[in-house]
Amino acid sequence: MRQVTSFNPPVRTLMGPGPSDVNPRILSAMARPTIGHLDPAFVAMMDEIKLMLQYAFQTKNELTIAVSAPGSAGMETCFVNLIEPGDKVIVCQNGVFGGRMKENVERCGGIAIMVEDNWGEPVDPGKLEDALKAHTDAIIVAFVHAETSTGVVSDAKTLCNIAHKNDCLTIVDAVTSLGGSELLLDDWGIDAVYSGTQKCLSCTPGLSPVSFSEAAVNRIQSRKTRVQSWFLDLNLVMGYWGENAKRAYHHTAPINSLYALHEALVILQEEGLENAWRRHQSNHILLREGLKALGIGFIVEENARLPQLNAVSIPDSVKDEAQIRQTLLNEYGLEIGAGLGNLAGKIWRIGLMGYASNKKNIAHCLRALQDVLN
Amino acid sequence: MRQVTSFNPPVRTLMGPGPSDVNPRILSAMARPTIGHLDPAFVAMMDEIKLMLQYAFQTKNELTIAVSAPGSAGMETCFVNLIEPGDKVIVCQNGVFGGRMKENVERCGGIAIMVEDNWGEPVDPGKLEDALKAHTDAIIVAFVHAETSTGVVSDAKTLCNIAHKNDCLTIVDAVTSLGGSELLLDDWGIDAVYSGTQKCLSCTPGLSPVSFSEAAVNRIQSRKTRVQSWFLDLNLVMGYWGENAKRAYHHTAPINSLYALHEALVILQEEGLENAWRRHQSNHILLREGLKALGIGFIVEENARLPQLNAVSIPDSVKDEAQIRQTLLNEYGLEIGAGLGNLAGKIWRIGLMGYASNKKNIAHCLRALQDVLN
Repeated sequence: MRQVTSFNPPVRTLMGPGPSDVNPRILSAMARPTIGHLDPAFVAMMDEIKLMLQYAFQTKNELTIAVSAPGSAGMETCFVNLIEPGDKVIVCQNGVFGGRMKENVERCGGIAIMVEDNWGEPVDPGKLEDALKAHTDAIIVAFVHAETSTGVVSDAKTLCNIAHKNDCLTIVDAVTSLGGSELLLDDWGIDAVYSGTQKCLSCTPGLSPVSFSEAAVNRIQSRKTRVQSWFLDLNLVMGYWGENAKRAYHHTAPINSLYALHEALVILQEEGLENAWRRHQSNHILLREGLKALGIGFIVEENARLPQLNAVSIPDSVKDEAQIRQTLLNEYGLEIGAGLGNLAGKIWRIGLMGYASNKKNIAHCLRALQDVLN
Repeated sequence: MRQVTSFNPPVRTLMGPGPSDVNPRILSAMARPTIGHLDPAFVAMMDEIKLMLQYAFQTKNELTIAVSAPGSAGMETCFVNLIEPGDKVIVCQNGVFGGRMKENVERCGGIAIMVEDNWGEPVDPGKLEDALKAHTDAIIVAFVHAETSTGVVSDAKTLCNIAHKNDCLTIVDAVTSLGGSELLLDDWGIDAVYSGTQKCLSCTPGLSPVSFSEAAVNRIQSRKTRVQSWFLDLNLVMGYWGENAKRAYHHTAPINSLYALHEALVILQEEGLENAWRRHQSNHILLREGLKALGIGFIVEENARLPQLNAVSIPDSVKDEAQIRQTLLNEYGLEIGAGLGNLAGKIWRIGLMGYASNKKNIAHCLRALQDVLN
C-alpha cells in the first residue's frame, strides 16, 4: 500500500449550505482529552447540553437531546419513532427535503400524502387544510421550516395550528433555522423537531439535536409495534440520556463531538438567542445590498427569505456555473453552494450561518464574486 | 436559565472497554479547520481513509467505508442491508452483543435462530454446524469475533468456513478486534463486518468502519424490498463514498471525526498492523502477570483471551465493586469497565486498547489496584 501521510485541510471560508465556518473555540473544545461516556463528569455535561438545547429550541420538552449522527439520522429518528405501518402522514414538499420525508414515511410502512408547492415558495397553509379535509385519518403533518435547498422559510406556527386543529402531531425540519432565525417550539406547537450542528450553531457536523413534546412521547411509548431501528429507538435512547440514576448503556456517545456541541451552545447562550437572530438578519441585508449592486437577485420573495441561506439566481452572463464555483474555491478559498435537485445549475446558495455570518465573510464573498463575474 | 460555562474534562486514563485513551495526534487532527464535505480535498481524504481501512481489515473489498455514526449503527447497517423480511439468520450468542444482533434481525422482519454458548466461552463451531443442519433455509450466519462484554475471541475463520459450506453469508462484529488482534477479512471469508473507532484504533468514538464482500454487495443490490433505513441504505451511501465523478449528496459527513479517523489509520500504518497485534499481546502478558501477583484471575480460558480486553474475576474480598471503581476514578483518574448483563457485579473489564496499551498504563493500573484492594 502507498504510504499515506497526515491530512492538513486547505483553509476555506464556508459560505455554502453547511457546514459553515466553525468557531475556533469549538475546534479547541473538540480536541480536549476523551473521557468515558459513563463518566459522571461526562453525564453532567450531557445534562448541560440538554438544558442549553431547550433554550436554543425554546422548549420545556424533557426529551431534548442530540442524536449521535448527522441531521438525516435526526430526521429518521422522528419518523421511525412516530410512525407505525399503515399510518397516514401529510408531507408538505417545497424543496429537496420534503422528498426525503416522503422516503422516510414510506420506509416506515406509512402512507405519505404529498402537498406540493413550487420550489422557492413557502408551504401554502390553504393546501394543507384541503389535504387534511380530504384525509381525515391522517395522524401526522410533516414539513420543513427552513428549506436548505431553496432558502425559504415557511410559517411553522400557522401550519402547526392547522395540524393540531385536525388532531395531527407535527414533525418539523429545523436543520437550517436552529440558532439562525426565530424558532419557538412550545409557542408554535411543534411536536417533533430535528436539526443539525453544522448550520447556524457553527459546530462540526455529525450530531442532530432533536426534541419531542409530551404528546409525541406518549405516542412513542404507546406504539403497538417496535421501532424498526434499534439505534434510533427513543425508548432505548431515553434510558441513556435520562436521569443519572437510570443511565443505561445504549451506544457509545461521540464524546468529542458532544464537547464541540456543548461549546457551540455556550457561545449561543453568551450571545443570546434573539441577538443571534438579529445578527443573521442584519448581515443578510448587507449581503443582499451588495449582491444587488452586482445585479444578482433572489429566487425567494422578500418575506419568505431565510437570512442564513441566500438562494440567488445565477446571472445570465455565466456560461459555466460550476467553473465559477471552482474558481472561487481555488483562488479565494471560498465555498458557496450549488443548486440541488430541480434547481441544480440555476441557483447558488450563499450561507451566512452562525460564526460565518460576519462582515468579513460578506466583504470577501462580494469582492470575489465581483472579480470572477467580470 | 443558569449560565453554563465551557466544559473542561478531568484527566483520565481509559482502561475500560472503550473509549480508550486517544492519541494526542488524533485530537490535534480533529481540531483542524472544517472544510466542506464535497470539497475535492475532503473527497481525496475519504479515498485515503478507504485505502487505509482496507489495510486495517486486510481486504480488497471495494465497499470499505466508515458509517457516520457509532458502532451500533455499523451493526445496524450490516443487518438492514442484508436482511429482508422472512429471512432466516443464525445468530451465535456468547455475550451481550449477540443479543443485540438478534434484536437487529427481528427489527428487520427476519427470523433469528439462536446458537447459545456460555458467556466467557467462544462460539462452538459444532453447535453452528448442528444449527445449519436443522435450518437449511438459513441465509446468513452472524457472530461476534471479539466479545467486548466477556473478553473472548471466537475462531472466525472456522465459523465463516462452516457458514460458506452451507451457502450462508457471514456478518461479523469486529468492534474490539480491529487493530488490536488478528483480523483477516478476505482470508477468513467475512462478508460483512462492522467495527468502532474508539477501541484499538484509539480514535474518538462516533464512527463505524464497515466492509462488504462482493457477494454481500450483490445481495444488497438485488434486494426485492427497500432497505428500511434511509440513512443507512448502502445503495445510497455507495454513491457518496464512490468514485469522485459520481459523488452524490447523501448526508453531511462528520468532517472532523473523519480527520481523526484518518490520523488514527496513518498511525496504525506507521506502526504496522502485525506490530500493533504483537504489542497488544505482549502488554496483555505484562498485565496478566501483574494481576496474577495480586491474586486476580481471568474468566476466559487462556487460548480464547483477547489481549486488548481483559475480563477478570472480582476478588472475593471485594464487598462493593462499584465503590472500588469509583475510588479508582476519583483518586487515580483510572477508568476500568464493569461487567455487562449477566456478568454485572461479577467481573471487571480492563482494556489495553490501541494507544492505551502501554507500559505506563499497566504500571498505573496495577499499582492502583494494589492500593485499593489492600
